Amino acid sequence: MPAHASVSFAALAAQLANIGRHCYDRGWALGTSGNFSAVVSRDPLRLAITVSGVDKGLLSAGQIVEIDEDGKVVGGSGTPSAEASLHLTIVRARGAGVGAVLHTHSIWSTIFSDTTAAEGLAIEGYEMLKGLDGVDTHDHREWLPILDNTQDWAAAAPRIKTALAQHPNAHGFLIRRHGLYTWGRDLAEAKRQVEILEFLFEVMGRKRGMTWQP
Amino acid sequence: MPAHASVSFAALAAQLANIGRHCYDRGWALGTSGNFSAVVSRDPLRLAITVSGVDKGLLSAGQIVEIDEDGKVVGGSGTPSAEASLHLTIVRARGAGVGAVLHTHSIWSTIFSDTTAAEGLAIEGYEMLKGLDGVDTHDHREWLPILDNTQDWAAAAPRIKTALAQHPNAHGFLIRRHGLYTWGRDLAEAKRQVEILEFLFEVMGRKRGMTWQP
Amino acid sequence: MPAHASVSFAALAAQLANIGRHCYDRGWALGTSGNFSAVVSRDPLRLAITVSGVDKGLLSAGQIVEIDEDGKVVGGSGTPSAEASLHLTIVRARGAGVGAVLHTHSIWSTIFSDTTAAEGLAIEGYEMLKGLDGVDTHDHREWLPILDNTQDWAAAAPRIKTALAQHPNAHGFLIRRHGLYTWGRDLAEAKRQVEILEFLFEVMGRKRGMTWQP
Amino acid sequence: MPAHASVSFAALAAQLANIGRHCYDRGWALGTSGNFSAVVSRDPLRLAITVSGVDKGLLSAGQIVEIDEDGKVVGGSGTPSAEASLHLTIVRARGAGVGAVLHTHSIWSTIFSDTTAAEGLAIEGYEMLKGLDGVDTHDHREWLPILDNTQDWAAAAPRIKTALAQHPNAHGFLIRRHGLYTWGRDLAEAKRQVEILEFLFEVMGRKRGMTWQP
Repeated sequence: MPAHASVSFAALAAQLANIGRHCYDRGWALGTSGNFSAVVSRDPLRLAITVSGVDKGLLSAGQIVEIDEDGKVVGGSGTPSAEASLHLTIVRARGAGVGAVLHTHSIWSTIFSDTTAAEGLAIEGYEMLKGLDGVDTHDHREWLPILDNTQDWAAAAPRIKTALAQHPNAHGFLIRRHGLYTWGRDLAEAKRQVEILEFLFEVMGRKRGMTWQP
Repeated sequence: MPAHASVSFAALAAQLANIGRHCYDRGWALGTSGNFSAVVSRDPLRLAITVSGVDKGLLSAGQIVEIDEDGKVVGGSGTPSAEASLHLTIVRARGAGVGAVLHTHSIWSTIFSDTTAAEGLAIEGYEMLKGLDGVDTHDHREWLPILDNTQDWAAAAPRIKTALAQHPNAHGFLIRRHGLYTWGRDLAEAKRQVEILEFLFEVMGRKRGMTWQP
Repeated sequence: MPAHASVSFAALAAQLANIGRHCYDRGWALGTSGNFSAVVSRDPLRLAITVSGVDKGLLSAGQIVEIDEDGKVVGGSGTPSAEASLHLTIVRARGAGVGAVLHTHSIWSTIFSDTTAAEGLAIEGYEMLKGLDGVDTHDHREWLPILDNTQDWAAAAPRIKTALAQHPNAHGFLIRRHGLYTWGRDLAEAKRQVEILEFLFEVMGRKRGMTWQP
Repeated sequence: MPAHASVSFAALAAQLANIGRHCYDRGWALGTSGNFSAVVSRDPLRLAITVSGVDKGLLSAGQIVEIDEDGKVVGGSGTPSAEASLHLTIVRARGAGVGAVLHTHSIWSTIFSDTTAAEGLAIEGYEMLKGLDGVDTHDHREWLPILDNTQDWAAAAPRIKTALAQHPNAHGFLIRRHGLYTWGRDLAEAKRQVEILEFLFEVMGRKRGMTWQP
C-alpha cells in the first residue's frame, strides 16, 4: 500500500467516525447498529469500514479498519462489520461512481423495510428526491428494492448483485426489518442520500398514521 | 455598492449561516434542502442568499452570495439557489415590510403541503398564531395558499405574484410536496414565523393521527 | 427593595434564563411562546418574570424584569409578559408553597388543552405522577382543569382564582389551544413538574394514536 | 472496604452520572425518573446506585451512593432510590453475568408496559435484537415479562425473583405504566440493551399507529 493511500485511509477513517457519531445522534445507529465504509483505492480494491459491535455514539477513527477485496483486514485492527461483503458487493456492482456506502438502522427505514405487500418501496413526486444523485426534478419515481434479511452476507452476495443489476437506477435498498443501504460518489453525497431517504420515509410513515386527511 | 452595504452583506451572511445550521438541527433543512435570504438593500434591490446544493448542517457565511434584482451574483461566489427568483418575487410583492425570506423543508410542512382537497391550509383559534406579524389574538384565521411545485421558478413568478396579491394577509405559503415559505421584517422575525408555523403543522398533524379524541 | 432581595432577583433571573433556553431546546417554547416567573419576595410580593415577545432560545437574564403585586415593573427594563397577571394570581392563590410558575406551550399540552368533551384532563395510574409535589404513589388521579383562552388575563383573574379554589389539589392547568401552567416551591420543582406533565401528555397522546392496542 | 474497591466505586459513580445525563437527554429519564446501578463488588455484594429524587439531567457522581446487600448506604451520602431492592434482586437472580442494571422511564416503554391483553411483550424477527447479549440472529423471539407496579419493592422482591426464574432468557422486563429494566455485564452493555429495546418499542409503537399498511 503506497504512502499516499495510507494518508487517505486515515482521512477517511476520521470522516467515517464523524458520520457514525452524527447518525447515532440522529437516532439512526443506536445500540451497535449501522455500519459505514469508504473506498480507499479501486485497484486494488480497498475499503475503510467500521469494525463490528462498537457504540456509534463514541465511534473513533481507531475503530475503522482497512479491508481488501476479500474482506481481509490489511490496515488497522479489529473485526470488520459482519456486513462487509455487502459493502464490497455494492462497490463492485455500482462501479467507479461509488466512493462510500452507508447503512443506517433507523426507526422509519426499519418500518418501511417490513412491507409484506411488495418487494420494494416506491417514492414519488417529492421535491426532496432531487437530493438523490442525478435526479433533477420532483417528477421522479424512486424504487427501493426490499431484500430479505440473513446472517450470512457472504452467501447472499449473488442475490444482492442480482437486485442491483435489476434496479440499475436505485439509489439504495432496504433489508427487511433491518434498515437502509445507500451510497454515493463520496461520503458527503452518501450522507446526503441517507438524509433524503430518511426524511421521505418519515413523511410517508406519518401520513400513513393519519386517520383523516387534511 | 457602497462600503456600508458590503458590511451589511457580511453580517447578514453570518446570520443566514447561523439560521441555516439551526434549521438543519431542527430537521427542517436535511439533505441540501431549504434556502434562506435577507435583503441587503432595496434600491437597488440586493439579496444575500444561500448557494445551491450545500449541506445546511455545515452552512458557512462563504456559502452565501449577493444577488441583484435579476438574480445575478454581484458578491461572493457560487450559484444561488434555484429558487432565488421565488425569494425576489416575495420581496417585491410584499414590499418594504420584508427583510428576510426563509424556506424550510420539514416533515410536517411537506405533509400539509400535500393536501388535495383544498388550495390552502386554514389554521385558526390557536394562541401560537399571535407570534405571526400583526396578529394580536388567538381568534385569528390564517390561510396559507398551497402552490403547485415546479422546476422553473423564473417562469412561475407571475403565478406566485398572483397568489400573494390574492392573499395579502398570508404570512407564508406551502409548495406542494416541497415545504414552507415565510418571511419577516428581519431574520429574527422570519425565524419566529417558521417556528410558529412548524409548531402549528405538528399540532394539527398529530391531532389528525389520533383515532379517538380526548 | 433591600440589597439582599436584589441579589436574589439577579440569581433568579439567571435561573429563569437557563430554564427558558432549556424549554426552547425541548420544543416547549418555540417562537416567542412560553413565560416563566419566580418569587423574589412575598411581603411585599415581587416576581421575576420574562419580558414579552422574546426568543426563548436566546433568553438572557437581561430579559427578566421584576414586577410588584400590580404587575408594575420595579426592576430591570422591558414589558412583562402579557400573562403576568396569571402568574400573580397563581402565586396568591396557592400561597407560600409556590416559589415559581412555568408556562410551557408544547405540542402535546396544546393538543390536550383542546378537549371539547370535558372541562379538564384526568391522568391516573402512572408511576411518573410521583414526580408531582406531595404525590407518593402511582395510584393517584390528577385532574388538570382546562380554562378558556383569552387576551385579557387581568379581567380573567377571578375566573382563574375560582378554578384554583375548586381544584385545590391540581398541580397545574391547561389553557385551551394555548398550553400548560404549573408551579412549584422553587424553579427546580416547577421544572420537574413540567417534565412530568409533558411526559404524561405525550404517553397518552401517542396511545390515542394507536389503531390497535398491544 | 478495601482501597481498590473504593476507587472502583468512584469510577462507576462517574460512569453512572454520564449514563444518567445521556438518558435524560434522550427523554428516557425526565423529571426525577429512572435509576441506575453498577456492581462494585460481589463478595460482599456492593452496588453503586443513584440517590432518590434527583434531576438526571444534572446527575453528578456525588449523587451516587454505595449500598450493601441489604440496601444500607456504606459509601457516599443520600437516600438510595426507592427501587434499590429491585436492583439487588436482579443482580442476585442473574448472578455473575450482571455488572449493571438500568431502569429507564421512556414514553414507549411506558406505553408497552400498559398492555392488558398479555403478561409480557414479544419482540421477534428484527435485526436489532442481535444487540442483546448472546443473541446472534434476527430470528429470535424476545419475551419481556410485564410486572405490576407497586410502591413496596422490598415486599415485591419474591415476585420479581420468580419472574426472573420463569424467564431465564429475558434480557429485561417492563413494570406496568412505569418503564423498563434491563441489565448487562457492564454499563456499556446495559446501555446498549436500553437502546436496542427502546428502538424496538418505538418501531412497534409507530407501526401500530399506522392506519393502513405500506
